[in-house]
Amino acid sequence: MTFTTHTTSPARAAAAPIAPVAPSHAALRPLGLDEVTIRGGFWGERQRVNGTATLSHIAGWLEREGWIANFDLAASGALPEGRRGREFSDSEVYKYLEAVAWEIGRLSAADDAADAGAIAELEAQFRSVVDRVAAAQETDGYLNTRFGRPGQEPRWKNLEWGHELYCLGHLFQAAVARVRTRPDADDGLIDIARRAADLVCEVFGDDGIQSMCGHAEIELGLVELSRVTGDERYLRQAQLFVERHGTGVLPDIEFGRSYYQDDLPVREADVLRGHAVRANYLAAGAVDLAVETGDTELLGALERQWTNTVARRTYVTGGQGSHHQDEAFGDDFELPSDRAYSETCAGVASIMFSWRMLLAEGESRYADLIERTLFNVVATSPSAEGTSFYYANTLHQRRPAEHASADEVSPRASSSLRAPWFEVSCCPPNVARTFASLAAYVATADAGGVQLHQYAPASIRTTLDGGTEIALEVETAYPAEGSVGVQVLTDAAEPWTLSLRVPAWAAGASLVVRDAAGAEVPEASASLEPGYARVTRAFAAGERVELELPVAPRFTSPDPRIDAVRGCLVVERGPEVFALESVDLAEAGITATDVADILLDATVPPREADGHVLVAVRGRHPEIGPWPYGDEVDAAPAEASVHEVALVPYHEWAQRGPSTMRVWLPA
Amino acid sequence: MTFTTHTTSPARAAAAPIAPVAPSHAALRPLGLDEVTIRGGFWGERQRVNGTATLSHIAGWLEREGWIANFDLAASGALPEGRRGREFSDSEVYKYLEAVAWEIGRLSAADDAADAGAIAELEAQFRSVVDRVAAAQETDGYLNTRFGRPGQEPRWKNLEWGHELYCLGHLFQAAVARVRTRPDADDGLIDIARRAADLVCEVFGDDGIQSMCGHAEIELGLVELSRVTGDERYLRQAQLFVERHGTGVLPDIEFGRSYYQDDLPVREADVLRGHAVRANYLAAGAVDLAVETGDTELLGALERQWTNTVARRTYVTGGQGSHHQDEAFGDDFELPSDRAYSETCAGVASIMFSWRMLLAEGESRYADLIERTLFNVVATSPSAEGTSFYYANTLHQRRPAEHASADEVSPRASSSLRAPWFEVSCCPPNVARTFASLAAYVATADAGGVQLHQYAPASIRTTLDGGTEIALEVETAYPAEGSVGVQVLTDAAEPWTLSLRVPAWAAGASLVVRDAAGAEVPEASASLEPGYARVTRAFAAGERVELELPVAPRFTSPDPRIDAVRGCLVVERGPEVFALESVDLAEAGITATDVADILLDATVPPREADGHVLVAVRGRHPEIGPWPYGDEVDAAPAEASVHEVALVPYHEWAQRGPSTMRVWLPA
Repeated sequence: MTFTTHTTSPARAAAAPIAPVAPSHAALRPLGLDEVTIRGGFWGERQRVNGTATLSHIAGWLEREGWIANFDLAASGALPEGRRGREFSDSEVYKYLEAVAWEIGRLSAADDAADAGAIAELEAQFRSVVDRVAAAQETDGYLNTRFGRPGQEPRWKNLEWGHELYCLGHLFQAAVARVRTRPDADDGLIDIARRAADLVCEVFGDDGIQSMCGHAEIELGLVELSRVTGDERYLRQAQLFVERHGTGVLPDIEFGRSYYQDDLPVREADVLRGHAVRANYLAAGAVDLAVETGDTELLGALERQWTNTVARRTYVTGGQGSHHQDEAFGDDFELPSDRAYSETCAGVASIMFSWRMLLAEGESRYADLIERTLFNVVATSPSAEGTSFYYANTLHQRRPAEHASADEVSPRASSSLRAPWFEVSCCPPNVARTFASLAAYVATADAGGVQLHQYAPASIRTTLDGGTEIALEVETAYPAEGSVGVQVLTDAAEPWTLSLRVPAWAAGASLVVRDAAGAEVPEASASLEPGYARVTRAFAAGERVELELPVAPRFTSPDPRIDAVRGCLVVERGPEVFALESVDLAEAGITATDVADILLDATVPPREADGHVLVAVRGRHPEIGPWPYGDEVDAAPAEASVHEVALVPYHEWAQRGPSTMRVWLPA
Repeated sequence: MTFTTHTTSPARAAAAPIAPVAPSHAALRPLGLDEVTIRGGFWGERQRVNGTATLSHIAGWLEREGWIANFDLAASGALPEGRRGREFSDSEVYKYLEAVAWEIGRLSAADDAADAGAIAELEAQFRSVVDRVAAAQETDGYLNTRFGRPGQEPRWKNLEWGHELYCLGHLFQAAVARVRTRPDADDGLIDIARRAADLVCEVFGDDGIQSMCGHAEIELGLVELSRVTGDERYLRQAQLFVERHGTGVLPDIEFGRSYYQDDLPVREADVLRGHAVRANYLAAGAVDLAVETGDTELLGALERQWTNTVARRTYVTGGQGSHHQDEAFGDDFELPSDRAYSETCAGVASIMFSWRMLLAEGESRYADLIERTLFNVVATSPSAEGTSFYYANTLHQRRPAEHASADEVSPRASSSLRAPWFEVSCCPPNVARTFASLAAYVATADAGGVQLHQYAPASIRTTLDGGTEIALEVETAYPAEGSVGVQVLTDAAEPWTLSLRVPAWAAGASLVVRDAAGAEVPEASASLEPGYARVTRAFAAGERVELELPVAPRFTSPDPRIDAVRGCLVVERGPEVFALESVDLAEAGITATDVADILLDATVPPREADGHVLVAVRGRHPEIGPWPYGDEVDAAPAEASVHEVALVPYHEWAQRGPSTMRVWLPA
């Protein structure tokens, strides 16, 4: 391919949205934190907990485990002896900085005087950590506490496992978040990032080391850095890294080169494979590259990979990755519930990929997957208190898991209830940065109007390219209820289009437009096929668009090629997947105590009562024979009596202590 | 518990059978290689290939990879620089020595002059390797090429991962095999083993390091060493190691302490858990300990664990271990076909555990599992040529695997076709030692007679405790055919009992006793319930017992708790599990090219024709939709036309090149 340049002028960068992704060219322009404010509701509560509990929880553990102190040791020349944490622990500090940067931006945009103290505190904390990071940077720009000093492994020699460039990618994302939320800040993080990026371009450029990092991430960090700085060298370097994938520059390893996507060139692959976080980060960076360079072939390859990955390698929760061993995608339709790895960070990474595709192409399917993954993976990881996390997200818990110690690092990713911290603790800051920047995923604009992709009570203010000023208030109790009201607060001289996403599951959705007096406007019809319901109108202040999404609980079947859940159904309600937990069995009067001993009565549709989703089940009391195979293995017919049992939204599971749980129910 | 001693006198040891396990006290006495000779048939062919191809293949790779040369380097003081291989590579050399010792014993017992050259060659090779091992032993008895020298990790400090004691366990098993097959040999291997064992007793004894090895194996090695030497210290040391399991002497690790069975005391556990090879080796050693010390409580715990493991955590092939990540057992009924790890060595280890239980208790269920595991795990690992191996044994291949290079070490355990050698290459020598000693698993004796547990054409000669001499010739084409004829060659003055195992699957088996003239003996009835068909008679030479096992192909259903195979059937025939390979679809006139697109017609029983097992299937051509869940996911009804397709015995799969394969067929 030809390297096509597109000038990213500083002026343009300054006008970029306060959002995690700001493409120079895209179908849709993201509305940033200054344009969208989430006000309460499902996601507002998560943002509140994130800001008031999770960020300080993370800061505490980063200090306690010495991962910030590693930078102090580097600065004082005390490494390598005192260094603590895994080879990639620097990256958790950077993800934390990114989360704090977004949180400062979020609170500042909300314009609530009560937040002033919190903002000041976060600012002080942010600057303090940046100072400690800055002190560790070497004169040539190198920045990593794990490599390059006497007694440490040399720089850039262990690219397959060392994560040096991966860490820098997260540094760049943090610096970009800071520039976008505080363009006038003098903390210097952007300079740290630029010095490191300059070194990377020197060392790994056209004439440099012809290799890449085993864990993708720097690719998207470099593109974003080029967007905020206008420096085309970073874009070129991102391109080199993306294009080196699949050329066998890294060694063959136990898991195969697919583990780090070095098995096939990005533009030749048909589906994501290998380590699920790496695969999605790489795809996200490659979309960034494709849109900046106008590389439609590359974008087409990524669309194809997204399509096939969603059709064949994604759990009903949106979770990705069915292998514990290498945290990797399995083969097509290899989606075991009980061995679902569905890493929280793979969910975050999948949203990053999908969001970039949505901006590039404007298709609702990308927002559909983002919604599914937000509700059923990202929201599942943290506890209600925001201080313990699932690293992996199984869809079937066969044995009640133990409580994790609230005061210890969990050595294991998936054998306890939510844990406060992990040896590999990427999920807490990854969840935190996603929640802090979540408003930026709610809505976009294009020349013709505004698109709503995610539903939450929110205030939206933006100006279209043509000058039309738009202010909207979104009122909804979604997903508890399916009504979404969009109150228009501004008068428009020209018609513009309000687009509301109709999720693929929302057959039977309906839409009404009301004038300022509350009367239905009959001519403002909108197609309610899945996709976007579009209302084009010279909206007047006081007018209102009301979308009704059918959120009654429903049964969903699996594709018959998914062997693991053959003969089972799952209950969904709106965007939420539901689960049966053993702690609910006794209350329903069921004598079986384990979800293994429950059969769903699929002839009775799921129903809702008193805020609970109920299904009809029958218990069984099978004996366990000497050998579980034969012509007469004890199938213990289900009891005659049918009981209604309450399900819980999957993201709420295991909040009441140890239980067995299953998402897919044998029918 | 009290430590109960049972004198194991040298005289008794000398009279012990030439077999891998020689308990002082047991329900059944194994008949050794001098008492049972397999003559051709299914297992005779495997023994032939093992002796003529596999052993030299292993020797070649051990040299090529430097794993024997590590001992030379140790002797010349050149370690650690030149050392090659993983921390446990010494153990592969010892397993190889054990295999050669059994092969020498096997060929010597067969009493075929044509074997003289082969025996001499094996003897020379054996002694040469023993000399190189001997030179590496340190003056205090320590023997390991990976630890303890300047520049290496210190001795006994990395017990959880170092495998030092594990390696010695295999050394002891090799030395025991040598003493049993060549009690007068002067190669010195037994002295090497004793010096090492003495050091272990000193270092890890009652007053020594209160810990154990992360990989069980030395326990059974020490008991067996005490059996051939009569030295009770080794038995005591084995007891200390067994009893230390479950007391938390090893650190908690990512996989949990269950990984190395340090989560629960052996006598308190209800089921095997953690690493499947470790779990079975430990259980085998614990049975050895229990029978030598008369510890019925411990034996009872092991019986309970065996029962629950077989009822809940074993694949239909007999394979064990459903986790790739930690090579471990999963939870009860967590038995995914496509992620079956079913490590070859776990199959070997399971046979070791079951065989010891069979000797201790005499119940046919143990021999049933041994047979199933031999045919469907151990026989599956090697290629027909005996020079490439499966490390893991999946029950469902979703993508055609690549050919493994015949000339390279495979870094991966399970993503290619059979490979010649692995970075962790325990399966080739483990299969080799099992095949070389296989005759010792065929039959046993007790005071009242002889028991046949496995069916193969074989010559059996033994003398009962009361002095009755017995010679039998077993004639059978099993498992191709179900007829087993036992020709009696000796006259007995007193009645004795011939017991023939009736496998649990063999409903409808029948038995006939014929006198020397071939006439049916009506009074010699035998119960043909699963278990042992017993014929008690003062047998005369020329009499014959004929067992007919029904080996027609049959459908088998899974326990409904095994989610992974809900709605599927498997075809079995006799002890063999069958599989559908995609390479057989085209020949059957089926347009589908992948086993994913096949539905079994369960109304048509499987049948046999021209030596093939055939089932009726219908093809499907499902499209892949955008999202594999919904109320109308494309289930693509099967085509109307039914085709008969040939299955292959699972152990033969992937001998014809890459294919997709499934054992469980959706009905």
